[in-house]
Amino acid sequence: MIKHEIAVIPGDGIGNEVVPAALNVLNAAAEVHGGLSFKFTEFPWNCDYYLKHGMMMPEDGLRTLQSFEAVFLGAVGDPAKVPDHISLWGLLIKIRREFEQVINIRPAKYIQGIVSPLVNPNDFDLIVVRENSEGEYSEVGGRIHKGEDQMAIQNAIFTRKGTERAIRYAFELAAKRRGHLTSATKSNGIFHSMPFWDDVFKEVSQDYPDTRTASYHIDALAAFFVTRPQIFDVIVASNLFGDILTDIGAAIMGSIGIAPAANINLNGKFPSMFEPVHGSAPDICGKGIANPIGQIWTAKMMLDHLGHQELGQQVLDAMEATIFSGIKTPDIGGKASTQEMTDDICSRLKKL
Amino acid sequence: MIKHEIAVIPGDGIGNEVVPAALNVLNAAAEVHGGLSFKFTEFPWNCDYYLKHGMMMPEDGLRTLQSFEAVFLGAVGDPAKVPDHISLWGLLIKIRREFEQVINIRPAKYIQGIVSPLVNPNDFDLIVVRENSEGEYSEVGGRIHKGEDQMAIQNAIFTRKGTERAIRYAFELAAKRRGHLTSATKSNGIFHSMPFWDDVFKEVSQDYPDTRTASYHIDALAAFFVTRPQIFDVIVASNLFGDILTDIGAAIMGSIGIAPAANINLNGKFPSMFEPVHGSAPDICGKGIANPIGQIWTAKMMLDHLGHQELGQQVLDAMEATIFSGIKTPDIGGKASTQEMTDDICSRLKKL
Ligand SMILES: CC(C)[C@H](C(=O)O)[C@@H](O)C(=O)O
Ligand SMILES: CC(C)[C@H](C(=O)O)[C@@H](O)C(=O)O
Repeated sequence: MIKHEIAVIPGDGIGNEVVPAALNVLNAAAEVHGGLSFKFTEFPWNCDYYLKHGMMMPEDGLRTLQSFEAVFLGAVGDPAKVPDHISLWGLLIKIRREFEQVINIRPAKYIQGIVSPLVNPNDFDLIVVRENSEGEYSEVGGRIHKGEDQMAIQNAIFTRKGTERAIRYAFELAAKRRGHLTSATKSNGIFHSMPFWDDVFKEVSQDYPDTRTASYHIDALAAFFVTRPQIFDVIVASNLFGDILTDIGAAIMGSIGIAPAANINLNGKFPSMFEPVHGSAPDICGKGIANPIGQIWTAKMMLDHLGHQELGQQVLDAMEATIFSGIKTPDIGGKASTQEMTDDICSRLKKL
Repeated sequence: MIKHEIAVIPGDGIGNEVVPAALNVLNAAAEVHGGLSFKFTEFPWNCDYYLKHGMMMPEDGLRTLQSFEAVFLGAVGDPAKVPDHISLWGLLIKIRREFEQVINIRPAKYIQGIVSPLVNPNDFDLIVVRENSEGEYSEVGGRIHKGEDQMAIQNAIFTRKGTERAIRYAFELAAKRRGHLTSATKSNGIFHSMPFWDDVFKEVSQDYPDTRTASYHIDALAAFFVTRPQIFDVIVASNLFGDILTDIGAAIMGSIGIAPAANINLNGKFPSMFEPVHGSAPDICGKGIANPIGQIWTAKMMLDHLGHQELGQQVLDAMEATIFSGIKTPDIGGKASTQEMTDDICSRLKKL
């Protein structure tokens, strides 16, 4: 019997609705597998926790999480309660950083049965590898002067190590897929960091002579995500560019509610974290209509990471079958509740 | 007789095909007006010029341009000849900066007869006001160390003055349109500059109590450009975010070849510059099929700026009528050449 110990942080808003849904699916998957079980330990760290305790997680929160194999997270943030940069940097980004989850992987692909806003969404299937530890998301900087003279300086920091490991990871991934890698740059406008990014990309590409490569400026690349997403296989991008591209990726799939993500620790010293692309969506919270697909697909990525690729594929198949059968939440054009959709996925999974 | 002295820089690639087309339209418009004429003075500053002279424009290039009322530019850059950051910072960005063209305005709207990649492109009509002088496009920064230890630091600089004038300009513009302004931020991930941006936005908004406002993180905003562009009226964005959004704006219109732009000098000390969003497109250069619409629409923005709003509207009407009649270049689903499209626009204009 394999037993996985998972730390679960539902977080804010619909995190509390879609995380339980995904845990049901994981339990169903374990049942299907037979020799597998999960122990989920839940942590109530979110904006309400902050309002009570003045911090997003306890002092020893990271130490507590560290003993788990993986962290399964819903959504963090509720600006009506706590300013975003406090809630996110106090929990989500803190875990990414402290647990050295240096790579963020986010697939986007056409799923039959979900209406895309694109006339031709057919058959796109891409993965964005996002640098997850540095770049434009940096605490370095600040403000000087007051009033009219005030200015803010923000430092983006690109290290050789951070840039290279993201690019290398993407090359390895491309080699396992269709052998094509696109680099997101903006070296025509961003003067220092992006030419550096290009140099590292060029250098690392020497080690992968069989991989076809392309390099686009982020403005053109974002536009291509809309006009011809089919041309992409793997895309490697900085922290900010990866963030932007993956939301567009979710949009062209048909809903931000379905996009999954994994924050990967590469050195094995800390757990990886699995959290969907969507946020806490306070506007639809409490109605029971949140799309569980983003969280369930994220659970599939966690299964892959834990070594259960076959089971992961089954979850994906069940999920796609449910969608195709028309059992869908309102955001993707159906009338089903979170619960109904989840139940259908679980029962399909058990029948596989 | 009003006579406008315009400096013309066709630049690289298709700039040399679409600029003459747009000049024809401007001449036709002057003819229609009756009391108006243009004197165009052309400057051959581009990547070929760089290869001969080691610079993108002569030492006294800026001084030469300064005596004109406006600069009309095609496209700059041809990475096969000169690295982008040299060609662009040596000409395009140099003019934007030195001539204090601190605002970049870029409309995007649904045009009947152009196939959009969106299922529902109907009736969106938005303008992005882009901060054009600072922010993420900054020469401040550099590299330290070599090899494994190398890192690049890029400083984004947001001054109170620069941020406020872009936001204020956008509020003024929104007041003349549908009274709605959206701010592009990323204060949940970008720690110093974007919370500053938000603060300035909030403060300036006090002066415009009648304007409805919204604020979205750039990732969500980019996604909304795809899923529901109709919700936007005016959007104000930093240099980088404006760059990304306007390429998506062009994409949802149906072609990057049609999006116009104006770089506006506010203090009257220097000419403004008019250049379309698209680049030099070396891949289609020389075939006579470049879409002239981006450049012609840009000419319309120049007419507006020179005080000829009515004439500008006539150019837009003629342009839309030509497109609607099916006389279109291949990028927007037609078979017409640059020349044919331009001729049709001119003849419609003369018949108005
Ligand atoms: C060519 C490049 C430097 C430029 C920019 O990013 O400003 C272009 O993309 C634009 O939008 O005008
Ligand atoms: C919430 C925010 C800080 C976060 C990010 O930008 O990384 C989110 O948009 C994401 O993509 O996970």
